[in-house]
Amino acid sequence: MTSGITDVPGVRVAHVTLSQDAPVVRTGVTCVLPHHRDLLAHPVPAAVHVVNGYGKPVGLSQVVELGELEAPVLLTGTLAVGAVHEGAVRELLGRHPDLGRPATVNPVVLECNDGRLHDARTLAVRPAHAEAAVRAARTAGEGHPIGQGAVGAGTGMVAFGWKGGIGTASVPVQDDGRVRATLGALVLTNMGRPEDLVVHGRRVGARGGEPVAGPADGSVVVLLATDARLDARQLGRLARRAQNGLARTGVPTAHGSGEFVLAWSTGSTTDAPRRDGGWLTPWFDAVAEVVEEAVLSSLRHACATTGLDGLVADRCPHV
Amino acid sequence: MTSGITDVPGVRVAHVTLSQDAPVVRTGVTCVLPHHRDLLAHPVPAAVHVVNGYGKPVGLSQVVELGELEAPVLLTGTLAVGAVHEGAVRELLGRHPDLGRPATVNPVVLECNDGRLHDARTLAVRPAHAEAAVRAARTAGEGHPIGQGAVGAGTGMVAFGWKGGIGTASVPVQDDGRVRATLGALVLTNMGRPEDLVVHGRRVGARGGEPVAGPADGSVVVLLATDARLDARQLGRLARRAQNGLARTGVPTAHGSGEFVLAWSTGSTTDAPRRDGGWLTPWFDAVAEVVEEAVLSSLRHACATTGLDGLVADRCPHV
Amino acid sequence: MTSGITDVPGVRVAHVTLSQDAPVVRTGVTCVLPHHRDLLAHPVPAAVHVVNGYGKPVGLSQVVELGELEAPVLLTGTLAVGAVHEGAVRELLGRHPDLGRPATVNPVVLECNDGRLHDARTLAVRPAHAEAAVRAARTAGEGHPIGQGAVGAGTGMVAFGWKGGIGTASVPVQDDGRVRATLGALVLTNMGRPEDLVVHGRRVGARGGEPVAGPADGSVVVLLATDARLDARQLGRLARRAQNGLARTGVPTAHGSGEFVLAWSTGSTTDAPRRDGGWLTPWFDAVAEVVEEAVLSSLRHACATTGLDGLVADRCPHV
Amino acid sequence: MTSGITDVPGVRVAHVTLSQDAPVVRTGVTCVLPHHRDLLAHPVPAAVHVVNGYGKPVGLSQVVELGELEAPVLLTGTLAVGAVHEGAVRELLGRHPDLGRPATVNPVVLECNDGRLHDARTLAVRPAHAEAAVRAARTAGEGHPIGQGAVGAGTGMVAFGWKGGIGTASVPVQDDGRVRATLGALVLTNMGRPEDLVVHGRRVGARGGEPVAGPADGSVVVLLATDARLDARQLGRLARRAQNGLARTGVPTAHGSGEFVLAWSTGSTTDAPRRDGGWLTPWFDAVAEVVEEAVLSSLRHACATTGLDGLVADRCPHV
Repeated sequence: MTSGITDVPGVRVAHVTLSQDAPVVRTGVTCVLPHHRDLLAHPVPAAVHVVNGYGKPVGLSQVVELGELEAPVLLTGTLAVGAVHEGAVRELLGRHPDLGRPATVNPVVLECNDGRLHDARTLAVRPAHAEAAVRAARTAGEGHPIGQGAVGAGTGMVAFGWKGGIGTASVPVQDDGRVRATLGALVLTNMGRPEDLVVHGRRVGARGGEPVAGPADGSVVVLLATDARLDARQLGRLARRAQNGLARTGVPTAHGSGEFVLAWSTGSTTDAPRRDGGWLTPWFDAVAEVVEEAVLSSLRHACATTGLDGLVADRCPHV
Repeated sequence: MTSGITDVPGVRVAHVTLSQDAPVVRTGVTCVLPHHRDLLAHPVPAAVHVVNGYGKPVGLSQVVELGELEAPVLLTGTLAVGAVHEGAVRELLGRHPDLGRPATVNPVVLECNDGRLHDARTLAVRPAHAEAAVRAARTAGEGHPIGQGAVGAGTGMVAFGWKGGIGTASVPVQDDGRVRATLGALVLTNMGRPEDLVVHGRRVGARGGEPVAGPADGSVVVLLATDARLDARQLGRLARRAQNGLARTGVPTAHGSGEFVLAWSTGSTTDAPRRDGGWLTPWFDAVAEVVEEAVLSSLRHACATTGLDGLVADRCPHV
Repeated sequence: MTSGITDVPGVRVAHVTLSQDAPVVRTGVTCVLPHHRDLLAHPVPAAVHVVNGYGKPVGLSQVVELGELEAPVLLTGTLAVGAVHEGAVRELLGRHPDLGRPATVNPVVLECNDGRLHDARTLAVRPAHAEAAVRAARTAGEGHPIGQGAVGAGTGMVAFGWKGGIGTASVPVQDDGRVRATLGALVLTNMGRPEDLVVHGRRVGARGGEPVAGPADGSVVVLLATDARLDARQLGRLARRAQNGLARTGVPTAHGSGEFVLAWSTGSTTDAPRRDGGWLTPWFDAVAEVVEEAVLSSLRHACATTGLDGLVADRCPHV
Repeated sequence: MTSGITDVPGVRVAHVTLSQDAPVVRTGVTCVLPHHRDLLAHPVPAAVHVVNGYGKPVGLSQVVELGELEAPVLLTGTLAVGAVHEGAVRELLGRHPDLGRPATVNPVVLECNDGRLHDARTLAVRPAHAEAAVRAARTAGEGHPIGQGAVGAGTGMVAFGWKGGIGTASVPVQDDGRVRATLGALVLTNMGRPEDLVVHGRRVGARGGEPVAGPADGSVVVLLATDARLDARQLGRLARRAQNGLARTGVPTAHGSGEFVLAWSTGSTTDAPRRDGGWLTPWFDAVAEVVEEAVLSSLRHACATTGLDGLVADRCPHV
């Protein structure tokens, strides 16, 4: 049995969930640590792919330029990216007394718009929530199952008209018998119309239940982690295959949807990476599979949530 | 009933098919004219998207820079790109006496590797074949059904272990009631393993028939045309959705597969384009649909072909 | 006589400067309004170019995707991007009561690292400072000269070992006699070693004065505005020429330097843009010229500043 | 004394020059071998940067995707890219009996438009010329000075109104004392107006001699080679600095100019590459320097050439 992205050794995840009824707060922060060591001293090879860039991420430009990730990754609601970025910076300043003199650091913040269930105008997420999420991730045990669905950044998300949020999955990858490694995905789902949803090849359409009507817009964040030795360019090739997995679940990559993919490797960087070759195709297959499963898992684990103006996002009955 | 990309007014297609048995020649050239007027004087807005760049296209850099297409588009086998480019240049020099003094022109050549069925070492495609294909396209009637499957550039292609090649489809798009336009696709399919194929959500796997075993590598070219007024940047957004349609049919976007998408609009360029908005989402949906249909159509129309060393690519029994 | 980027009708600039001695605060916020109307209702065509991506910008992904800018642009120090983003969001929520339900907004925040003169660990910039900068820009008069050098985001910046910061310039562009328009640039300079500086073709080297020794790293932000009708793709072509202007002044585009260029047009969007052609070359020439002048202007206007640990960045004696 | 790009161990260069008077032929082919071993078996890490994409290159897409160069690089005139590509393919088929069954190969062809001095409508360059150029490069001695100016692909080129063409230079790079390596550049210059030219910081303008009037358009190709161990992503960072060197010589990167940069490393690929850091800045400085020198060298070595309609491109009197 796999528990998800934390099956990749070293990866840690923690959530801070904010929920109250007046004003209606349904939001939070999820922190993913690419590995458990000091990231500033030991950054990991990393790559970015943008399917549709309608979003407000922070930190991706530097990952693209340097091909490495040197700080925690945080997920949250759209209007909270500033507060979460500051919180991550505060936590890092606390751990690194020389930071800022003048070296800087590059935490990554990714977001979806939880403004349908959550009163985003409250700006309920404060820097301290992000600090708490990073600290919780640092002390999280390794490899244990992580919360999915309506938790952390997933608290207020809606996917395919149903309650979405955090989902995760992992698959083993054995490429030409020489390497056995794990590929994990963690997604934040907040996109798609009810009629878009495809479950393992079956387009379930608007049948059953009472999905939330609404636009296809919304966004989905995909994180990919592996313990195989892949360099930044190769991770970029993996990241571009996340769209295959999203497409399998019917994600429409709509006009107003931000689809951002961030991939990293925790494998040794003292060995030279292998030349690209056919051994990568099983990895590409695995990306499609693990992203599909993570999206479905976000629906499977999300319980019904009542939000702003009494809007209810039900648990998806099709997964 | 639609006939494919030629449902977009002005688009013309013609094939030159080369087939002989000793040496084994199974190749050809397909020419697609973006519209029927003088393209050098009236280039069309155009955009490019590369899913996996393992390929040898010519002409895309300038389309990316200028956002326009000013010459015919030709499809062929990998080792023939040079000959086909020269043939296109020759045809254009013949039509434009001032060309080359010093103005140049930018024909686009896209390719898949037909070296499994075809003895590509023969370099059987000559510049004159490309010239003939361009001339044939210029005199092709408008809107009539075009040859699909094992014709033109599709002659030697293998997709999902079955005979692939040229496929085409079109769909009407009605975005928010203000515009009614047509979106057409023409694909050249030469990728995927038998177990990859998905037909309308059903993964048919390796059941039935005797598909050609082999790698997932190979390539697929996607051309998208519309008569709606879309500018180059918007066409780029459409092009990036072609991957959704490919993924629906199970295209694995393997390591050694070149997936190149070229999109253009024949709509008026005297009007300012509309601002991007939710009206684009039906276009994005349409791209996935029309590309899926074009891929399946390439299988449906391709008859069994015997090639190099007696290798037989059968007609796909699943479509 | 030109006053800089505010010579482009509609563009407004305001600074909030923070300076105190214990702890040492030398930082601030600069707000640039792309035009003076409601940007959410009337976004402007815009484009981004990244020379070296070592930086922490917010908001660029969506500008790239949609080709438009829908909110104020703010400049600040690296560790303040979160606070400044939240401040911009707060100001916009105050003006747009429906914002966040669920529509979002995309302010752009760009930064350089002022951690050599400024104690960046103080996190002295608060969201309220960004709110104040946006409000000040909204009420700034049109076309009047703006503060340069050690003001706003420029307060703590060091360029070529001398005091850098905000610089601005504008040039008229007359392309083939049909259009007369203005191109303005505003830069935030914080990069380069003393020996890199080139003033109008003359490499001044380390001669004269006492420049701050140090790495070439640091960053430079370039904003380009014009009232000519250029679409997002054409603006991207302009943005890519900013590097020509930077190179003329000797900017080394070092490993740890973030060079981000954001360009927009306030011209009418109801006319179709002109086809790309030779008329663009004077625009490209103008970009190099105006960026060179803006960089030199940032040095010319920056007075000596004493910062952290008594470090003094002198006024550059070469301009 | 350095001789240019061939100072990088393994790099070989050969020219085939075509010159006749009726019709006026002033063109040719230049072949650069990235190293002297079997490139298909031992491809080199490589990267591409496009400053302005107005050009017709072949082979760059695959270099971008795989980060490697597996075949010779050829330079020629614009209308000859097809013939030259076929010639390169023919030479490779001759050396590799299994090529095309079904594996393919990816020669790179880059071009500038020599149609001002050369009657490009003659299509004088035939595949056999490219074959001859590749064969000559394979047998060229190592490290000896190579022909510059009006030779090979440079035969018909015009730069800054003067005779341009092939130029080359090399510089040693010593980054933080740990690595001593060579960086070489070879350029093909065919761009700029007389008033654009800058020689070591001095804008010479249109003074002296009788330059050819004309547009700034035209193109410049830049090849960068080094024996240092740099991976594809790092080479991409180098390639993006070529624009700094071009800008120093006044290259206007005009609308109709294709500026393509291709960089590779012949260093060992069995060691892991170093993490990006400040040690790269001397490399970036070296790129600007070596490209500037190579451009000036192309002018310095190019003798006056009479071309089409009696047009004379004189030797530049300023270098």
